[in-house]
Order: sequence, then C-alpha cells, then structure tokens
Amino acid sequence: MNKEYENIKVIGLDADDTLWVNETYYREAEKEFAKILEAFETPNKINQELFKKEMQDLHLYGYGIKSFVLSMIDSAIEISNNTISNNAIKKIIDIGKTMINKPVELLEGVEEVLNKLAPKYRLILATKGDLLDQERKLEKSGLTKYFHHIEVLSDKKEANYSNLLNHLDVNPSEFLMIGNSLKSDVLPLVNIKANAIHVPYHTTWEHEQVKEEETNGKIYKTVNSLRDILELLN
Amino acid sequence: MNKEYENIKVIGLDADDTLWVNETYYREAEKEFAKILEAFETPNKINQELFKKEMQDLHLYGYGIKSFVLSMIDSAIEISNNTISNNAIKKIIDIGKTMINKPVELLEGVEEVLNKLAPKYRLILATKGDLLDQERKLEKSGLTKYFHHIEVLSDKKEANYSNLLNHLDVNPSEFLMIGNSLKSDVLPLVNIKANAIHVPYHTTWEHEQVKEEETNGKIYKTVNSLRDILELLN
Repeated sequence: MNKEYENIKVIGLDADDTLWVNETYYREAEKEFAKILEAFETPNKINQELFKKEMQDLHLYGYGIKSFVLSMIDSAIEISNNTISNNAIKKIIDIGKTMINKPVELLEGVEEVLNKLAPKYRLILATKGDLLDQERKLEKSGLTKYFHHIEVLSDKKEANYSNLLNHLDVNPSEFLMIGNSLKSDVLPLVNIKANAIHVPYHTTWEHEQVKEEETNGKIYKTVNSLRDILELLN
Repeated sequence: MNKEYENIKVIGLDADDTLWVNETYYREAEKEFAKILEAFETPNKINQELFKKEMQDLHLYGYGIKSFVLSMIDSAIEISNNTISNNAIKKIIDIGKTMINKPVELLEGVEEVLNKLAPKYRLILATKGDLLDQERKLEKSGLTKYFHHIEVLSDKKEANYSNLLNHLDVNPSEFLMIGNSLKSDVLPLVNIKANAIHVPYHTTWEHEQVKEEETNGKIYKTVNSLRDILELLN
C-alpha cells in the first residue's frame, strides 16, 4: 500500500457523479426547461437566468431536486414576465418528479471497488442534496451493503467535514474522501489536513467549478477512474 | 432515578414541536394559502385538497417546507382549474420563504432541561424534515452546544430508528427518544424495544395522528411538559 494512506480507517465516498450518473440528468432537465420557455428567450439566456436564481435561492433551499424545481418555477415566472401558463408550471413540476424517479446508473468499476474496500475500511456515503432522494438512490443502486451508513451534509465546506469527523470520532489523518468535485470533495479536506482523492466526472456543474489558483499548492491525488484507487489503497 | 431508565446512554430529542414551535407556522401558512385561493373554494375544502396532495407527494418529496410549497403550487393549479395567476404562485413561493426565515421560538423549559441532561447523556437531535432547515433552526435556537450531533431521518419508522441505533452503536435498551408525536417519536421506539417519552404539543398535524387502539398495550410514559422529564431521569 501507498504509505501515505496507511493510517486511513474511514473512507467517505461522494455519491452523485462519483458512484452514479447525476449531473447529466440536470443538464437534460435544463434543456427541457429551456424548451418550455422557448417562446420567451434563447436557451442560453434561460440557462443563465436559472443558474442565477439557483444561486440566489441556495442559502434558503440548499441542494437537491426540490430546490431545483422551486428555482425553475420562480425563474419561469420572471422570464415569461408573469405570463407562464399553469400547464407549463405543471410540466416543470413533472421534470422534477421524473428526475426523482430516474433509475440509478452506476459508473464504471464502482461495485468492484466497493467490494474490495469494504472489508478493510469503514465506508460512509457522504453526499449533499436531499436525504430522502439520496437514500432512495442508494437503495436502488444495490450498494447499501457496502456502507456503514449515509451522511447527508447540508453543504460540503470545511466546517461540515470537521463536524462529520467529530461525530465519527476519527482524526483527519484517518479519513479519506473520494469524489468528483474538487470544490466539495477535495479542497475542504486538504484544508483540514484530511486526505482526498479526486476522480473527475466528464460534466461539472458551474457552481462546483474551481479556478486553477485555488488548487495550487494543495496536496491530493487525481485518478482517471474509480478503479485506479485500488492501486493506491492496496 | 427511575429504575427503568438506568441503562440509558443516548437520548434522542425530536425538534419540531418538542423543542420549538413548528406546527403553528404550518397552520398559519395553510390559512394564507386558503386566502390566496378564496375565489375558488371554501377554506375547509382547500385544506382537504392540500392535505390530499401532500399525502400523494410524500413518497416522492418527503417532509419539510420545500415539499409543502411544491404541494401547495400543484394543489393551487388543480383547485383553480388551471387558472391560478403567476402572482398567486409567487405568493405561495413567498409563504415558503417566510416559513424558512421564521425565528425559532423555544418551548417552555427547553434550555433548563437540556442543560441538566447534557452532562449525563449523549444528546442527539433526531428529526425529520429538511436537513438544511433543521440545521439552521438548531443554530438559531442557540442549543447547538447541548447536542453531540443532528440526525435528520427521511422518516421516523421502526427501520429508520433501527438503522440509527446501529449507526450510533447503542442497544435499544440504552436509547431513549423524547418527542411530541406518538406516531413518529414514541410507538416505533416501543416496537423495537427502545424507550420513549411522549411530550404532547397542543397541535398535531393530521398525518401524525394515531388511533387509540394503536397505543393499546404499548409501554411508554406521557408527561405534561418537557420539564417533567427531569423527575424521571434524575
């Protein structure tokens, strides 16, 4: 085993876009939303307005599909200048329900990796978003048996992770986080002296993007696919 | 100390309507909602339709204010026969935002009771609803220091509590739950052989009400106010 990981006792795994497809469904939903509003604005402008609304609402609503739907409705009223039809609002509500009911599509190598890590480490699913939604996805995924439990965080900032480590009774040096988001799964961990491995996903939500200078001097590993983790930990 | 509680190591406290006012704000919101729709139906019928919608949506959305707002919007479209104005929908969204921003009003005796229990037991805030919203309320309440951590459950059924006890590494006999809802805070605990104390609140959401026969033969204590717990545990 790689010496730097020999103290690890607990591994936190991000869920969306680390274990299963998620961002792709949001991109599809945004396209449908733009289509509903096509009489009023260009798809580009609609996406921009929606993102702006999501950012305004984030401190109130937090992450997840319900927040996304509420921001879409509010945004549709604004973009349409108070003329959006009841039918269109129903369609927006249905976009959300369809997202909630999506099947879970596991990413390449997930089951193999969890199967090999589970006997050696305490695995925690550490995700933000909606608790019910994430529990449902975990159940649909068939991966429940690999995880000690699920931790839904209202956000993934340093303070959230510090609270988590306190609650789990582990030292930062004993904790490794694995995930696709530099902003949420990697940098805050590095900053509290815990460990992190970055497994990029092909699509990153604008809100999760970080500038290059934010990663300068930060110590973490990036691997191409989840399977590469086995070489680092075995 | 009451002998039956001598094994208790961890106490779970419900939050809404056990530590602070909550149901009252939902009742106020329902009144406002009925006012927005007063041109279409009687307040009674509107409340009934909204409750029906909430129950239909519960398996998808779960508990909390965002779910409530989405059910109100959907219900408004139906009750108005697809004629609700954009302005009315904005008002419904604002009802939700106002609820999220409400100050936290502690119930009688809460601080005193937590202050006395915290040195002797590990206290957990065990609530359903929305994680971000509950974290925010805990922070506003000034009670954070008394709790080891917050556990938001997607539901409060036997399986949810069994998972919680596994995750906390405590036996049922070592766990005591305190809360205002017989359905959510008391009966599931009794059924998994853990302990429960019922502290009624003056208003109970229809969904939380239980029939008398459901409580027959179940062993739990009911106290008049949170302060009475100190006599049982001290």
